Amino acid sequence: MNGFVSLVGAGPGDPELLTLRAARRLADADLVLHDALVSPEILDLASTARRFPVGKRAERPSLRQETIHRLMIRAASDGKRVVRLKGGDPFVLGRGGEEALALAAARIPFEIVPGLTNAVTAPALSGIPVTHRGLASAFLVVSGHAEAAYGPVLESVAPGSLTVVVLMGLGSKGALSKLLIARGWKPATPAAVCLAAGTDRARTWVGSLETLGAAPALRGDPDAPGTIVIGDVVSVGATIAAALFPHHPSPLAARQAV
Amino acid sequence: MNGFVSLVGAGPGDPELLTLRAARRLADADLVLHDALVSPEILDLASTARRFPVGKRAERPSLRQETIHRLMIRAASDGKRVVRLKGGDPFVLGRGGEEALALAAARIPFEIVPGLTNAVTAPALSGIPVTHRGLASAFLVVSGHAEAAYGPVLESVAPGSLTVVVLMGLGSKGALSKLLIARGWKPATPAAVCLAAGTDRARTWVGSLETLGAAPALRGDPDAPGTIVIGDVVSVGATIAAALFPHHPSPLAARQAV
Repeated sequence: MNGFVSLVGAGPGDPELLTLRAARRLADADLVLHDALVSPEILDLASTARRFPVGKRAERPSLRQETIHRLMIRAASDGKRVVRLKGGDPFVLGRGGEEALALAAARIPFEIVPGLTNAVTAPALSGIPVTHRGLASAFLVVSGHAEAAYGPVLESVAPGSLTVVVLMGLGSKGALSKLLIARGWKPATPAAVCLAAGTDRARTWVGSLETLGAAPALRGDPDAPGTIVIGDVVSVGATIAAALFPHHPSPLAARQAV
Repeated sequence: MNGFVSLVGAGPGDPELLTLRAARRLADADLVLHDALVSPEILDLASTARRFPVGKRAERPSLRQETIHRLMIRAASDGKRVVRLKGGDPFVLGRGGEEALALAAARIPFEIVPGLTNAVTAPALSGIPVTHRGLASAFLVVSGHAEAAYGPVLESVAPGSLTVVVLMGLGSKGALSKLLIARGWKPATPAAVCLAAGTDRARTWVGSLETLGAAPALRGDPDAPGTIVIGDVVSVGATIAAALFPHHPSPLAARQAV
């Protein structure tokens, strides 16, 4: 009767970038309900749990959100320790708030275990700081999923005034580029696409706002999650990356997906 | 001759919210150069290292940034495993980019170990999701340190279009409130101040944009770091917090600092 749900952020994919608490919750779990993109290495930490994928991927549809709620609530009501495992952070475009509200309404005890969000971590793992003294002291994170959502926000911000990070925006690269240039952003503004950050397939493309629309997908893995970064910090990142990845003659470029 | 520097994010303060990699780097370190606000419990993980505070706190001045660079470079040149430990994430308003550039220029091998940023984690630990379906699909993170920096950004964003998160803004609460209301934000927009998130002194104040200027500091710890959140997601957070902290009759209010 001590059922409990942990809404856990899995971070970008590298098991070493889980928090200590997330690793402990996985080790103690009876049931793990996980997004499709959570890496097998992370799922292996839940060695004694039943594991059940509930997220969508490519053509396979995801379970309905209400079904996920029902699965969590039923298992916790049966006394299970449930981990609801999401890529990144549960409260950054992850519907974690909705799941928390559903658990609250059902009077199921739960907790939030934050994870590293790709909004900051995917750029960082490519060497790109989202803020940098003299270049940007603010950053904006938007979902690139629907223009109705990102359009009004991106149209309002003053061109060049901050770093723009777009999650789930690979399908909107061209539209984002056009929108920002039309809004007054310089076409030469540096831009990067960080693909599959935190995995051994990680690749970073670097170009400009003008060429962003032509940034390629990850060869062999068109579903790889991507984080778009737009702003002068991308140039600093190229210098940092040259030191971080010395075995590439021109690191960010060499990490380019083609 | 295998000196190495890890630029490590310590997260919000709770040792359990370190990443596995951060904990490992601390355990293996010879020298830890840390910000003043990193918790003693986290520093204790560096059991065999010399530990040296380099950040500023209240009246005590910090070391000059160049001095921090020199200390890192000298120790790594002597073959030491150096951890430069910063609260939150090294690349979010943490000058990590500058330190990475200094290490790159000195040809010292280094790495970035991202940490949980208070921009997302401080709200999450109070129950507040920075995004929520139907309320906000974007969030803006600004430094509240200097109006010259946050002013132009906050003046440009369309009122109510996203969640605003302000780091290092406790000293600017009143000015931020005035600026946003003058810009057209509704005075009744929900606002929260998350103090000392991730520590056992954590307190959350909840009010509105209109009352934000009067939000109190943490009793007994006026230096406690604070994260300001402005937007409708704060209301969702109050409902989630009521379930997360059931022993408080009115959780966010009861966690109010007075």
